[in-house]
Amino acid sequence: MWGGRFAAGPAAIMEVITPSIDFDKRMAMQDIAGSRAHCRMLALQQIISQFDAEEILRGLDIVEREIKDGTFAFSRKLEDIHLNIENRLKELVGDAAGRLHTARSRNDQVVTDFRLWVREACARAEEGLQELQRALFAQAEKHYATLMPGYTHMQPAQPITFGHHLLAYVEMFYRDRGRFADCSKRLNESPLGAAALAGTPYPIDRDVTAKTLGFARAMRNSLDAVSARDFALEYLAACTIMSTNISRLAAEIVQWSTPAFGFIRLSDAFTTGSSIMPQKRNPDAAELIRGKTGRVLGDFVALASVVKGLVLAYGTDLQEDKERVFDAADTVEVSLAAMAGMIADASVNDTVMRTAAEAGFPTATDLADWVVVKLKKPFREAHHIAGAIVKRAEDARLTLDKLPLKEMQAVEPGITEDVYKVLSLEASVNARMSYGGTAPDRVREQLYFWREKLK
Amino acid sequence: MWGGRFAAGPAAIMEVITPSIDFDKRMAMQDIAGSRAHCRMLALQQIISQFDAEEILRGLDIVEREIKDGTFAFSRKLEDIHLNIENRLKELVGDAAGRLHTARSRNDQVVTDFRLWVREACARAEEGLQELQRALFAQAEKHYATLMPGYTHMQPAQPITFGHHLLAYVEMFYRDRGRFADCSKRLNESPLGAAALAGTPYPIDRDVTAKTLGFARAMRNSLDAVSARDFALEYLAACTIMSTNISRLAAEIVQWSTPAFGFIRLSDAFTTGSSIMPQKRNPDAAELIRGKTGRVLGDFVALASVVKGLVLAYGTDLQEDKERVFDAADTVEVSLAAMAGMIADASVNDTVMRTAAEAGFPTATDLADWVVVKLKKPFREAHHIAGAIVKRAEDARLTLDKLPLKEMQAVEPGITEDVYKVLSLEASVNARMSYGGTAPDRVREQLYFWREKLK
Amino acid sequence: MWGGRFAAGPAAIMEVITPSIDFDKRMAMQDIAGSRAHCRMLALQQIISQFDAEEILRGLDIVEREIKDGTFAFSRKLEDIHLNIENRLKELVGDAAGRLHTARSRNDQVVTDFRLWVREACARAEEGLQELQRALFAQAEKHYATLMPGYTHMQPAQPITFGHHLLAYVEMFYRDRGRFADCSKRLNESPLGAAALAGTPYPIDRDVTAKTLGFARAMRNSLDAVSARDFALEYLAACTIMSTNISRLAAEIVQWSTPAFGFIRLSDAFTTGSSIMPQKRNPDAAELIRGKTGRVLGDFVALASVVKGLVLAYGTDLQEDKERVFDAADTVEVSLAAMAGMIADASVNDTVMRTAAEAGFPTATDLADWVVVKLKKPFREAHHIAGAIVKRAEDARLTLDKLPLKEMQAVEPGITEDVYKVLSLEASVNARMSYGGTAPDRVREQLYFWREKLK
Amino acid sequence: MWGGRFAAGPAAIMEVITPSIDFDKRMAMQDIAGSRAHCRMLALQQIISQFDAEEILRGLDIVEREIKDGTFAFSRKLEDIHLNIENRLKELVGDAAGRLHTARSRNDQVVTDFRLWVREACARAEEGLQELQRALFAQAEKHYATLMPGYTHMQPAQPITFGHHLLAYVEMFYRDRGRFADCSKRLNESPLGAAALAGTPYPIDRDVTAKTLGFARAMRNSLDAVSARDFALEYLAACTIMSTNISRLAAEIVQWSTPAFGFIRLSDAFTTGSSIMPQKRNPDAAELIRGKTGRVLGDFVALASVVKGLVLAYGTDLQEDKERVFDAADTVEVSLAAMAGMIADASVNDTVMRTAAEAGFPTATDLADWVVVKLKKPFREAHHIAGAIVKRAEDARLTLDKLPLKEMQAVEPGITEDVYKVLSLEASVNARMSYGGTAPDRVREQLYFWREKLK
Repeated sequence: MWGGRFAAGPAAIMEVITPSIDFDKRMAMQDIAGSRAHCRMLALQQIISQFDAEEILRGLDIVEREIKDGTFAFSRKLEDIHLNIENRLKELVGDAAGRLHTARSRNDQVVTDFRLWVREACARAEEGLQELQRALFAQAEKHYATLMPGYTHMQPAQPITFGHHLLAYVEMFYRDRGRFADCSKRLNESPLGAAALAGTPYPIDRDVTAKTLGFARAMRNSLDAVSARDFALEYLAACTIMSTNISRLAAEIVQWSTPAFGFIRLSDAFTTGSSIMPQKRNPDAAELIRGKTGRVLGDFVALASVVKGLVLAYGTDLQEDKERVFDAADTVEVSLAAMAGMIADASVNDTVMRTAAEAGFPTATDLADWVVVKLKKPFREAHHIAGAIVKRAEDARLTLDKLPLKEMQAVEPGITEDVYKVLSLEASVNARMSYGGTAPDRVREQLYFWREKLK
Repeated sequence: MWGGRFAAGPAAIMEVITPSIDFDKRMAMQDIAGSRAHCRMLALQQIISQFDAEEILRGLDIVEREIKDGTFAFSRKLEDIHLNIENRLKELVGDAAGRLHTARSRNDQVVTDFRLWVREACARAEEGLQELQRALFAQAEKHYATLMPGYTHMQPAQPITFGHHLLAYVEMFYRDRGRFADCSKRLNESPLGAAALAGTPYPIDRDVTAKTLGFARAMRNSLDAVSARDFALEYLAACTIMSTNISRLAAEIVQWSTPAFGFIRLSDAFTTGSSIMPQKRNPDAAELIRGKTGRVLGDFVALASVVKGLVLAYGTDLQEDKERVFDAADTVEVSLAAMAGMIADASVNDTVMRTAAEAGFPTATDLADWVVVKLKKPFREAHHIAGAIVKRAEDARLTLDKLPLKEMQAVEPGITEDVYKVLSLEASVNARMSYGGTAPDRVREQLYFWREKLK
Repeated sequence: MWGGRFAAGPAAIMEVITPSIDFDKRMAMQDIAGSRAHCRMLALQQIISQFDAEEILRGLDIVEREIKDGTFAFSRKLEDIHLNIENRLKELVGDAAGRLHTARSRNDQVVTDFRLWVREACARAEEGLQELQRALFAQAEKHYATLMPGYTHMQPAQPITFGHHLLAYVEMFYRDRGRFADCSKRLNESPLGAAALAGTPYPIDRDVTAKTLGFARAMRNSLDAVSARDFALEYLAACTIMSTNISRLAAEIVQWSTPAFGFIRLSDAFTTGSSIMPQKRNPDAAELIRGKTGRVLGDFVALASVVKGLVLAYGTDLQEDKERVFDAADTVEVSLAAMAGMIADASVNDTVMRTAAEAGFPTATDLADWVVVKLKKPFREAHHIAGAIVKRAEDARLTLDKLPLKEMQAVEPGITEDVYKVLSLEASVNARMSYGGTAPDRVREQLYFWREKLK
Repeated sequence: MWGGRFAAGPAAIMEVITPSIDFDKRMAMQDIAGSRAHCRMLALQQIISQFDAEEILRGLDIVEREIKDGTFAFSRKLEDIHLNIENRLKELVGDAAGRLHTARSRNDQVVTDFRLWVREACARAEEGLQELQRALFAQAEKHYATLMPGYTHMQPAQPITFGHHLLAYVEMFYRDRGRFADCSKRLNESPLGAAALAGTPYPIDRDVTAKTLGFARAMRNSLDAVSARDFALEYLAACTIMSTNISRLAAEIVQWSTPAFGFIRLSDAFTTGSSIMPQKRNPDAAELIRGKTGRVLGDFVALASVVKGLVLAYGTDLQEDKERVFDAADTVEVSLAAMAGMIADASVNDTVMRTAAEAGFPTATDLADWVVVKLKKPFREAHHIAGAIVKRAEDARLTLDKLPLKEMQAVEPGITEDVYKVLSLEASVNARMSYGGTAPDRVREQLYFWREKLK
């Protein structure tokens, strides 16, 4: 395979550690696309004959069919997808196959395939995110006015609506989409024609292959073309950030499903049971999604450590790049699909949510605000007054809207009956009319926005 | 501080673990800018009086001056920069200070400050990268035709020029700049007015504060506004990817400075000695830059783990965000500056590089290409022929351009005198005329491009 | 500082990036201890005179006092703690100071100091863990029979006791102690005398310095002595694993404190309020502890990435080791102390826990077990029967011990009145008498064990 | 599978995301061993009949054979290895199979299997490390006196011997063995009998199963037994630390093989060629080993992030534990084997190493030491003198032992002819006779030690 210079064959352990065919066969279609583009350009530039080009293209068609049909015989001896395909091509079309590798090296070939693959993975991630946004949107639309406790530190803070809460995730996933889009755009340059590292003496036309493969342009520096893996790192970073976002939603689902909360009920389809405990309905998928965040982060760490300190142009250390990217892509895609299904299928218990929203004096801020506005106190003083009233309500085991006026007046004599207008959950939520606030009218405004956006 | 509800004070250990003032005082200027914008908007909306607003602004001016002068007395008792400033403001302007916190919570305040800080950090990173690109460009311009060995696997592959090699980094850092720019653009939305998490009943105008602070728009969802930290993760990811790129250059500098290579000599200004070994000239800065890549990666990992699985809207876990971002920013900025200085100052040993480029038969590919073009052999066969000739040259301890013709003909009788035209380093480099290739003319073409770009 | 070979001074940026004095001054006491041991040995071996030795020791006493008093003037120009002390020593005792550095290099000096520091950090971590175990033990003793829901997947699984739950953490922290002990033992070898990397021609006695400093032996290989940082990685790994354990307890505290659970109430001393919401009692310390797990993991990742691929014997990349270790040590120590205080101070709401334990049919497994034992069914069939009965109870909104017998018989006619003996929470818990089980008698058995162990 | 409570089946995506059979089938043998031990104990305790026990054991024998023969039909529908085996057992022995699950849950079953698996992985790692130590030892024995440059900062520091350098790694790998041994010892406790999380009412004997399976004891707390994954993290940490150590050796091999160094030549068996460059001999295996360090670190990060913040007793997040551990184990084992082979096979070029050792004035420290000892100067002054002499030698392009005496006397008149005794490489190396130093006699001393140890 490596020509006339090696006396002894590889050690047995090398045949375990070096081949990449077990995973890089996933780039088979990208490899064929790259070879077709390269072949046509070689013929166009008269570097190979038209006849050879046609033979090669004919052979590639057969190879493609064999791989799609599952009849292609992959071989670990042939190391990787590139040599597997090239070898089969030689069996099919003979000497012409050998000419396909003119003005190309595995170094630019592999990274061309890989960029094509990551570009598609970005598109799939964007699509998966959009599907999830749609599932969230549909629930948010139903629950734009459904009351729930808004938490900070898992302590009741202020009442909000469930629709508002879900739309927060729609926003996060929108930025995630932006990250994949930026990544896709930045990586969309063609390394093909960089050859081993220095370019090639053949009169190739790199713009032609770039255009054929949908790249925006040919990369400007051949060393950079074969050495850079920042595009793979950027993809993994986008996956990791997206995973932290989705893991937050997953954690909420686990929490909302526990009986102490009971806010939502997952469908049977997205619940599993126990081999020993007959009563169990476990939110397995949510837990798996949350857990897999660690995995994706691990993928990023792995590749970042690999690239760190690696001199140009290429070291086999970089062979680790593809497994990490494939693993993250698989993980992200299945997580998005499972989450979208889980959200779409979940049923919400409005009553339980509303009851929960009453605990913990969530309208204490409204009380303080009332004191500011009506009694003209500075906020800091109003905050102190409201705190003292909460203490009384707590001792009396009453919610704020049930606490007798004179209890409040004992703390601050200026308080009047009017205060009760702001102490109910509905009043609190409806009042939060600032742009982006939780008032149902504001939530509806955002729903209009997203309905257009998610069409 | 927290009003009338707490009977006992905090435990001593809490005063160690909870305050953030030691690090978040770095956001003092952002905090003041945010408060000014908020104050003016409150007055504009007639939520506070014009008089109060003026008092507050006057107070903020004094606070700003005190902090800049170093006369401000920071207190750990007052937890964070926000309460430190607010408290001082109260001392300065009395009750009016208490009105500044109307329609604002620490939750939206802190994240407003933080977004402003990260936005500036992105700008500094972009600038630092550009300075480094300029230093690389200047050396590349001088050495656009200086021969050096091009390596893959740290084995000689093909001769290249040093200018070409340096421009590969200019390309990488250009993409790094793009990542910081994208991050800066995506985070440039105003969370101010989200209040604690749900918005506020006060008739605030979030567009006004957003515009005043240079944000592109107000965020659309108040929960998202206070919960999201993906902007900080994206910044850390951009820092990490940039660090892996710069670490590669650092590793090359360490390697190029070792006597076995001797390609460059760092200036005294960027070298350190040894306390025991009088002859030492150590490339400390390059090693530090390479090492600090791990640190920045660690910062990303830390924050990603923190955000993972965190339910909305806010948990104090997130207090970890700022130290990680500050640490990464400091690290990245000092690394960029040191690298730019080191590159600008380094002297290149052309002769040593050229000599090194002769080792390892780097024109073997040219030989194979000659066989393809002139003898019309498929590349794979030519590769085999060249391999066998390399073996002969190796045994004879000769470079390829010194190997007698008959030695080559013993392998492939068709080879003629003409082959020597492609076997010299200069011939090899000059031949690589494909776009983005290492031929000096091609490198010059890229230098033109970058001269414009880096103006 | 580096002798006669450098013409130009360092660049300004180098004075920012290279000095380590800002953090390595924390090793001052270790450095003095190492210098004393080295000095005495040099005199004993007659490498320096008795007079010089006494002068050096006298000077070191003064330096120690100055550092402890805070009167020592640290200088960034003098790079690190070692040169700062040496320089001051020279001011104090003149030429003798210069002789202290005989047969020693900064390479072995720094790593000697560092090993001593990490050894002490291990001891502090062990002690902190023991204090936390004691706090958990005290609560477990009070609540060895307090019923609570045992969860898997945050769904009720089987009733357990709170004491049993807390002892699970006592077990985890015991293993954590073991990891710090193992680390401390493995690192306890003396690198002193390895000099720069190759040993020294002076007739030193490394066993003497090793013994004086409490090391078990002198390291066997001088290169290994100055190059290895696996001890620091092992310490960071122990910190990370410990942090994941403590983060689980922190997450439980956050959950147990939310009103929907309400299992425990943190004391005022370990709770914080809100600047805007007067009713808040936030479990800040628990959240911080959980968050800081990410930070410690980041420290490990940082150093592991730094060490990866670093050739022997020493590169300045390794200067990153100390900041990561110091940061992890500080984090771990404050987290342990805060957690111990929080646990000791927390009050438990037995009634709420008991009520919560009734939800979710937690005795369904007992029902299945009864069917196995009394009706001689295979477990898989009994599991199916119990599942069907749970469905009926769920529809009837009854707990299992309140479900009428005939409802059960409708599923499985063989069920008799006797079944109710196993369906109460108390019966379920008391029945789990297998070794290590949750039956209060079993928990008491473990309390005896730990009372001895934690004395 | 989960009994009578689920109306609808799982969603299609759930059948993608939840099954673990694709990877956990690697625990088949451990699962069978655990089941055998559990079955025998159940019979011994008369929980199941002797007849049933024999049927189960007979069935398990068949299952074992089928799996070993590759005739076992694994099914994704049956989720994991435990249910796959149980289901097949039922086909083989009918109802008795259902009784095997008495007093056991998948929670304790899976973690029992996993502990057994990790225990074996520790043993394999220890063995792999020992093999590698032996390969290093064999080369070190041959080269105990072979001169090479000792580097710090990749700059020549002092001459050392190659044997000494290799023994540094023998030391590192010895500590790595210790870490795996400690991990193996600490995890060697039996969780079996903890059941779902709370123990079981059946009169089981956990000591019997613990002993049968080779565990040191039964775990003391059932919640801890099913929840803890610190053993997996400790294994991954040991793998990571070991990987950073081996990656350093890998980096040295890559460096030593580059022509500029040329210290060693890897055998054909451990070298690969290039598809385009016929002259290439690439140290692929070393690069792969170095790269895979990132992967193992990623595995640790992934699991640490998963465990972080996970409440007791069990969440499906933990299903991520096995893939990470299996991946790290495979990686570590193949890396150790490849490294051992590569080292054993490598040939060393003594002459090149010796020549390289002359560059960079590596005996400058010896010169300084001579000044200290013979001219009674403090070391700091001697260091300065030596530095100035190095500068003269550098300008004259001479090594120190070739520099005329009067050149030295120009710097320090006291220097005599006697100085040349210490300026040769041999003199320098032979002089470093301190314990653990690089003097060949000292290296031989360590070889004696290791010969015994590695028997």
